Amino acid sequence: MREYNVAILGATGAVGTRMIEQLAQSNIPVKKLKLLASKKSVGQKRYFNGTAIVIEEATPASFDNIDLVFSSAGGSVSKKLLPEAVKRGAVCVDNTSAFRMEPRVPLVVPEVNPDDLAWHHGIIANPNCSTIQMVVALNPIRRKFGLNRIIVSTYQAASGAGQSALNELNMQAKQMLAKQTVTTEMLPVKGEKRHFPLAFNLLPQIDVFEDDGYTHEEWKMIHETKKIMVGDMNDTTLKVTATCVRVPVEIGHGETVYFETGNEEINVEDIQKVIANGDGLELIDDPTTQTYPTPLSAVGHRETFVGRVRADQEEKGAFHMWVVADNLLKGAAWNAIQIGECLVARDLVRVVK
Amino acid sequence: MREYNVAILGATGAVGTRMIEQLAQSNIPVKKLKLLASKKSVGQKRYFNGTAIVIEEATPASFDNIDLVFSSAGGSVSKKLLPEAVKRGAVCVDNTSAFRMEPRVPLVVPEVNPDDLAWHHGIIANPNCSTIQMVVALNPIRRKFGLNRIIVSTYQAASGAGQSALNELNMQAKQMLAKQTVTTEMLPVKGEKRHFPLAFNLLPQIDVFEDDGYTHEEWKMIHETKKIMVGDMNDTTLKVTATCVRVPVEIGHGETVYFETGNEEINVEDIQKVIANGDGLELIDDPTTQTYPTPLSAVGHRETFVGRVRADQEEKGAFHMWVVADNLLKGAAWNAIQIGECLVARDLVRVVK
Repeated sequence: MREYNVAILGATGAVGTRMIEQLAQSNIPVKKLKLLASKKSVGQKRYFNGTAIVIEEATPASFDNIDLVFSSAGGSVSKKLLPEAVKRGAVCVDNTSAFRMEPRVPLVVPEVNPDDLAWHHGIIANPNCSTIQMVVALNPIRRKFGLNRIIVSTYQAASGAGQSALNELNMQAKQMLAKQTVTTEMLPVKGEKRHFPLAFNLLPQIDVFEDDGYTHEEWKMIHETKKIMVGDMNDTTLKVTATCVRVPVEIGHGETVYFETGNEEINVEDIQKVIANGDGLELIDDPTTQTYPTPLSAVGHRETFVGRVRADQEEKGAFHMWVVADNLLKGAAWNAIQIGECLVARDLVRVVK
Repeated sequence: MREYNVAILGATGAVGTRMIEQLAQSNIPVKKLKLLASKKSVGQKRYFNGTAIVIEEATPASFDNIDLVFSSAGGSVSKKLLPEAVKRGAVCVDNTSAFRMEPRVPLVVPEVNPDDLAWHHGIIANPNCSTIQMVVALNPIRRKFGLNRIIVSTYQAASGAGQSALNELNMQAKQMLAKQTVTTEMLPVKGEKRHFPLAFNLLPQIDVFEDDGYTHEEWKMIHETKKIMVGDMNDTTLKVTATCVRVPVEIGHGETVYFETGNEEINVEDIQKVIANGDGLELIDDPTTQTYPTPLSAVGHRETFVGRVRADQEEKGAFHMWVVADNLLKGAAWNAIQIGECLVARDLVRVVK
């Protein structure tokens, strides 16, 4: 059995930490694991299957003799270092948005479009957290009944903006409860001019604004959904619109998803049945016993949870549902490691230029 | 000038407290104010324009010689006591859902349908908090451009469930930050069997579930919007669907509102212009300077704030916006007192049976 030399780039972040965990629990045969981060983390230790591994600084030479890279160190780091890794023969699963819209880069959710892995050229992009859980939930519905339109509103946790955003939310919550002045340093977007408190508040901005008033996050959900489900980021047969809002939750994104199947013969039970049987999905849906998923109940799980499936009362063939997943696991670390498992199972851990 | 004997029923609650404040700041000429609550609050004092008023127990006889009642003591109290008040000649503005769907009871948002006050029979219903801010924002758009369809997702603050829910959120947040066991006593719905933490979490249930899987809150938004805007709670010309989610915010509801005008000639600037000029509305919308409303920025204000106005990229004549208001003021106390101001201005503080 082939064993792999694996590197995790960005190993100290909220997602990187979980990539180490998820890799340890995966069926990827790891010969050696290298943990890479920026200079300031060098010398720190992380544990993998009980063995301490010292963090090294990420440089192009770090990828010599590496077969498989999982990257979550930010877009600019990925842009700079992943081509170097590929040049050295490594296959890279990138959790940043750096390569997602490149035509030569497959954007993969294993439950939805695993076959797109076959045409990779060294880099496979992991989609945006809020996109992943939505397409996992909609995919079996689309396959069985068709899908014409999606309108989604997100309720996204602080950890989607990284460990420092999570820390900021906690600090702000403590300050507000103690009636102290609230510190605002990075949310909603690090690097933006203005910062607002997220604790006990809602921020209708995730990522920067584009000229048309949409945020980059909203466009990511639109384009990525089309690329993953239809194979074309500019597809016009599947209509998608998103509004993305940051909420004062630590981990776990919620989404209210409205969708039109175009199929007027189906009912709520039909939708519930395909979700209950869908890959990576769990139906948590019984209003009579107040049974529905929440971020707190989803934390630490790999599955995408769906509840509150209802028929739209105004439009035949249209439905609503509530989708929740751990944004650091299915929305990031686990989806990336799962791509790694698929690459191994299909013997695709090799670069074809 | 006629002066009025006014009573506030439920004077110690989150809304009642603010009714006292808003009444003091209103142009209603108050001869005498009576503050009513349940037995357990009797003897407490509240201040009105600097004068201490002792809380009295609410009984039918409390309404002798009262001209105008503002009620926010829960649906069952309203059902029992308001007909007694009307019998004694008082006009009642009721903040509960007890009478909202009664054909003989006008459901009024003064910016939208003040003329419905003319046909009251003693009781005027104040709509649900999440409905009010949405119809204030949509009304000028509907008047100028038409409106065929609304799909709304709400982000509703804890205080919408009353002062005790607000206290519960605060206690839970402290417990979670201290890594203590979290107490769950009333959220999402007092009187329901199961309770879940709201702090750092999302609860996709507001009010009880109906048989079709919708919550009562969701149906309130649908029926109330139709009754207020079209005059018929079962109207079919305006399609409305809502998904209601409780979020860990103290005060201030957010809403992502998708709407179809059916008018393909209009653009974002047209929508922004009517909102900027709309009654009770403030446009807070400039993505280039990260300018948008949030619950924290809306608290304590009477206005409904709108930002993030965008054209839907898939459907001509369809738009999205982000609507925020103080749910205890415009969503409850202020809208009720504002109805009182209209009743006074139109000389409608008299019961015609």
